[in-house]
Amino acid sequence: MRITDLETPAVVIDRAKVEANLARAQAYADQHGFKLRPHIKTHKLPILARRQVELGAIGITCQKLGEAEVMADGGLEDIFIPYNILGEAKLARLAALHERIRVSVTADSLVTIDGYAGHFTDPDHALPVLIECDTGMGRCGVQDVEEVVALAKRIAGAPGLRFQGLMTYPPRGRALEVEAWLQRAVEALEAEGLSVELISNGGTPDMYEIAGITTATEYRPGTYVYSDRMQVAFGHRTLEDCALTVLAQVVSRPTDDRAVIDAGSKALAADIAPVPGHGHVVGYPEAVITTLSEEHGVIDLSECSRKPEIGEKLHIIPNHVCVVSNLFDEVNLVEGDDVVETLPVAARGRLS
Amino acid sequence: MRITDLETPAVVIDRAKVEANLARAQAYADQHGFKLRPHIKTHKLPILARRQVELGAIGITCQKLGEAEVMADGGLEDIFIPYNILGEAKLARLAALHERIRVSVTADSLVTIDGYAGHFTDPDHALPVLIECDTGMGRCGVQDVEEVVALAKRIAGAPGLRFQGLMTYPPRGRALEVEAWLQRAVEALEAEGLSVELISNGGTPDMYEIAGITTATEYRPGTYVYSDRMQVAFGHRTLEDCALTVLAQVVSRPTDDRAVIDAGSKALAADIAPVPGHGHVVGYPEAVITTLSEEHGVIDLSECSRKPEIGEKLHIIPNHVCVVSNLFDEVNLVEGDDVVETLPVAARGRLS
Repeated sequence: MRITDLETPAVVIDRAKVEANLARAQAYADQHGFKLRPHIKTHKLPILARRQVELGAIGITCQKLGEAEVMADGGLEDIFIPYNILGEAKLARLAALHERIRVSVTADSLVTIDGYAGHFTDPDHALPVLIECDTGMGRCGVQDVEEVVALAKRIAGAPGLRFQGLMTYPPRGRALEVEAWLQRAVEALEAEGLSVELISNGGTPDMYEIAGITTATEYRPGTYVYSDRMQVAFGHRTLEDCALTVLAQVVSRPTDDRAVIDAGSKALAADIAPVPGHGHVVGYPEAVITTLSEEHGVIDLSECSRKPEIGEKLHIIPNHVCVVSNLFDEVNLVEGDDVVETLPVAARGRLS
Repeated sequence: MRITDLETPAVVIDRAKVEANLARAQAYADQHGFKLRPHIKTHKLPILARRQVELGAIGITCQKLGEAEVMADGGLEDIFIPYNILGEAKLARLAALHERIRVSVTADSLVTIDGYAGHFTDPDHALPVLIECDTGMGRCGVQDVEEVVALAKRIAGAPGLRFQGLMTYPPRGRALEVEAWLQRAVEALEAEGLSVELISNGGTPDMYEIAGITTATEYRPGTYVYSDRMQVAFGHRTLEDCALTVLAQVVSRPTDDRAVIDAGSKALAADIAPVPGHGHVVGYPEAVITTLSEEHGVIDLSECSRKPEIGEKLHIIPNHVCVVSNLFDEVNLVEGDDVVETLPVAARGRLS
């Protein structure tokens, strides 16, 4: 099947671009001496997670337990869940997963640690726990080094848990500050005789800005597999590197300067990027997707020298690609103009 | 099962509030002399669509063919699809649906009409077509009355099509302008001997603002079934009327003024409302959900007299409820504190 035969809207993934994006990041990590543990939230596809591991990743990252369960079913054997997992039901699921594969988690409170300690009690099969550090993002994470030490001691004192190290999701563009924070924490831990086996940092843009900064032993990039308009705006990739597009059809041309496509926020998501518009229209660089409603995208063509016709199918590079993967039940892998495989997005919608 | 036993994040729908919202809108429509043809995009559930018809709706509205197919499977027999349906594959699906149930569509161009005319040729089983009018929204729709007349003639001249009337999705708060536009179109059509059987207007907020304006014979409200923070901001309902909440758990309390919940943009969606924050935290009226990432919601508690603890489950009223329905595979109907039924969101993710 040709791409243009796909029913719109549809997700189209260029396999060659994915391969190039994965290889480039792995080479970069090798060069700078850290490991990759890719975040699968961007693709939610076991086949791409396995490919990331084949190319050198030491495991994967899932944000939710449900995603990890899908990935374990898909053959992934080493999964980090950087999340506070709370409550009897989720802890029982975590324990079941821990029986099947290598799994590690984070905590940023005594409540979370005590929950783990109550469900994991076997010293010969301890659960690795990292402490989440708020190095400036203002989301989860402990606020200071003293708290890191206190939590690390609590983990180390629980027979069925193993203190493995530190995890952070860094604020954008503040790598030196993050670095200093983590260094202070490592020193304080080592002064207490607690060794830090692993430091996990995250985010594609920061990964490409850390050359020369070496505290992190692992990185958790997600978006690099496809790239998107936001990454291009950050200056790390070009539009040509973007491997995922949403194929949409022009369903209306109400005026000379306006086109409406059959992809709205339900297909492209409403996330904004540091560039105008809700996506890049391939082949029409002056076109601006000005507004999205759920099932319509409105495109301003006033600056376009050439304008698309009703019925024409357009490739749209989304602002934020991870959220697009969560909106489609299936995606199409393509080579050139041919659809070579249609895959279910196995970990889509795994919220808990 | 009790609501608090649900795995978070989860969608909770209060059946009694749904019933009250549906009854109130039907009574309002009856009082003002127009019909309801509810837009199912808000709930995507055949059981609620059937309930809307039981209570007096003359049929339903689906934005996409795929949604209409699901609703026809669910027993709905009269479906309006206010969309330009283009291309062989979709037109064949439309024809198949037309064999099963009463279906009507819109067009705003000759291209769309000619597509319909090529697939529907039986005068004894003609496809009803409405002309979409851009009365100020700036999305799809013809721009002026002359174009309405030209398209209506083309429809009327196609043996297998039937010109049924006019459809618009109105700009917010400009009811008199919309009314004048439609009136001019009706007069121009009647002057040409074309009768307008039906005028379809849309949108919950506008429906509640049109008292005394009677050109529309039908309204297509969606959000009224659940209501949400945006509707409350528009002044039509109160927070207590909101029937759908996302149940989320506090997973972190990094500082005294910050809570993080396990519901981010993948659960609450990133749509903004004309009030601050990404949702209303029931029971914590001063709490502000300041930022959403995919799996985390960050809540500012600095103005709260009382603050939630780690592990506590919170009900969040979303900003825009329709997009939330598209993010969950299933929803929970509740009565009081009890979950009485868990339903698959049958029309979720039907993009084409």
